[in-house]
Amino acid sequence: MDVVLRLRVIAVLVLALTSCGGGGDTIRDDKPSASPGARTDDVLASWNDGEARRDIVEFVERVTEEGSPDYVAPEARIAVFDNDGTLWAEQPMPFELAFAIDRVRELAPSHPEWRTQQPFAAILRADVAGALQRGGRRGIAEIIAATHGEMTPDEFERVVRAWMSSARHPRFERRYSELVYQPMLELLDYLRENEFRLYIVSGGDTDFMRAWAEAVYGIPPSQVIGSQAQLRLERRGGVPTLVRGGEIEFIDDGPGKPIAIERTIGARPIAAFGNSDGDHEMLSWVAAGPGPRLAALVHHTDAEREFAYDREARSGRLDAALDDAQRSGWTVIDVRDDWRVVFPFERGE
Amino acid sequence: MDVVLRLRVIAVLVLALTSCGGGGDTIRDDKPSASPGARTDDVLASWNDGEARRDIVEFVERVTEEGSPDYVAPEARIAVFDNDGTLWAEQPMPFELAFAIDRVRELAPSHPEWRTQQPFAAILRADVAGALQRGGRRGIAEIIAATHGEMTPDEFERVVRAWMSSARHPRFERRYSELVYQPMLELLDYLRENEFRLYIVSGGDTDFMRAWAEAVYGIPPSQVIGSQAQLRLERRGGVPTLVRGGEIEFIDDGPGKPIAIERTIGARPIAAFGNSDGDHEMLSWVAAGPGPRLAALVHHTDAEREFAYDREARSGRLDAALDDAQRSGWTVIDVRDDWRVVFPFERGE
Repeated sequence: MDVVLRLRVIAVLVLALTSCGGGGDTIRDDKPSASPGARTDDVLASWNDGEARRDIVEFVERVTEEGSPDYVAPEARIAVFDNDGTLWAEQPMPFELAFAIDRVRELAPSHPEWRTQQPFAAILRADVAGALQRGGRRGIAEIIAATHGEMTPDEFERVVRAWMSSARHPRFERRYSELVYQPMLELLDYLRENEFRLYIVSGGDTDFMRAWAEAVYGIPPSQVIGSQAQLRLERRGGVPTLVRGGEIEFIDDGPGKPIAIERTIGARPIAAFGNSDGDHEMLSWVAAGPGPRLAALVHHTDAEREFAYDREARSGRLDAALDDAQRSGWTVIDVRDDWRVVFPFERGE
Repeated sequence: MDVVLRLRVIAVLVLALTSCGGGGDTIRDDKPSASPGARTDDVLASWNDGEARRDIVEFVERVTEEGSPDYVAPEARIAVFDNDGTLWAEQPMPFELAFAIDRVRELAPSHPEWRTQQPFAAILRADVAGALQRGGRRGIAEIIAATHGEMTPDEFERVVRAWMSSARHPRFERRYSELVYQPMLELLDYLRENEFRLYIVSGGDTDFMRAWAEAVYGIPPSQVIGSQAQLRLERRGGVPTLVRGGEIEFIDDGPGKPIAIERTIGARPIAAFGNSDGDHEMLSWVAAGPGPRLAALVHHTDAEREFAYDREARSGRLDAALDDAQRSGWTVIDVRDDWRVVFPFERGE
């Protein structure tokens, strides 16, 4: 990656991370819920029988029906999913940023200099919003370097897993892994049953997601594509060891998503799910392929059960991609109308 | 990738590609062939019953025996293979370089300026050695850019496939896909039968290999890891399209191999096969993991049936890694002694 691209890439990440909180008002049609009666099918049980569910089921039936002109062989049934805001929630801030902030607090005793050094000092005084806003891009880059770098991937995995098992979401007071979307879990199962290969394609750090994606989504490490930390090989006690550096080398967002998919998978998926403008290029590129395609956006319209944000949101903004969805006939999943259940714990588990 | 790393990386590629031809003399022990009697087993039938074959079979039996302390679950049975000189031949020059040179000739009619512009002019006068040596690093980079870049991955795939189906190796007068090693094909089958997941991890361009690796080795595109061309997303006639640039963004050689494996697979393989110092870091890193490990080098010792080269070779040099193999007890596959058959066509097909 050249210097210019790298700077651009850092800018994108910083933009994504600094703008947490304060989702804008949701602009949505006031359309009535489509036939919200309870369904009895096993498949996609938490989905209302609306257009979104019908789009998905029709697509899957078309591509799996042998002999049909739209039949797609199992090896080409690839579906990609953004993570933050698509498979799990992302408010009031992306969960990886919550991890980084908790980690700053945890590491503070061995960093006495942080007491006077921004953005760390503000975080330690519990002024997270101030830390992020005043620190700007450079501040975020410093937080990421201090919390994500200078560890082996295994060490980082242990740190992430420990956080995932103890940290709680500020509003729901539940573990972050409980804030996955139940209808999307059912969608992953449904696609797997239909011999789809599923990939996460997210702006989050690849190793951060790999630490829990298999347990939470059933998606193995080799099917998790994310942003990439610098990685170097060094000898530790004579043993060749990979070590994560502090810098981010590749940001898997915007045009980075189709690029990372092509590099890692070597094929264009036939289905893509996202929820923000960072997924726009991925959805357009998937939709532009030949044959049957499914491009879908989760539209966060439900402030009561979850969060409502779109065009004015500073984190997870959905604006140009929503226009394109309407223009191009992509599937829009309306959280309020399409999902009978949002989180697994609503089912009383 | 920063500028310094990128320059280093280009240097490595250029070194690999400019130094084609003229393999050095093979330095090898004059050990007698180990029990070269024909085997009747179906498994690894083209292998003599020597130490190399025994190492492989014992390793596979250990990791697949349920209940044994060395048992490895199928999802962790990952094996990685270098390509040039490990799965197929690489002399008198890496086959991808032969492709690039043929491609220069093919494209020459639309590049009249090449008649006077080096390194193209020398290639067009059939002075390939001169072109590569005089052009040096910059010359090779220009040949790669002119032959590998400014195409979509699909277009490049078609060009590579057309070349693979028509080009002939100068010595064997066979298609390059016929110059795969029969014993290694049997090894791929044997590992697959034992539920291993197989990856190519090679310095060659990823898309170059993906164009034929599934047909030739049964290894699908998502399991081919190689060097990466620059890739950009642009709109062509309003359609989002990925385009390969002329520059190489990541070189999958030396320390790049463990880095690319970690990034793509997210796990350390338990078996690695290589043949040159470019595989040294990959083999050491795989061998350093916990539990049972197999690290193996193909040692090219057979000038009659194939090529003989190692410590003095300018392309595919095997020197430090051979020392390490001897020191660390890695498996060394001696082509002359361990392989009853080298190429599939020797079997009279």
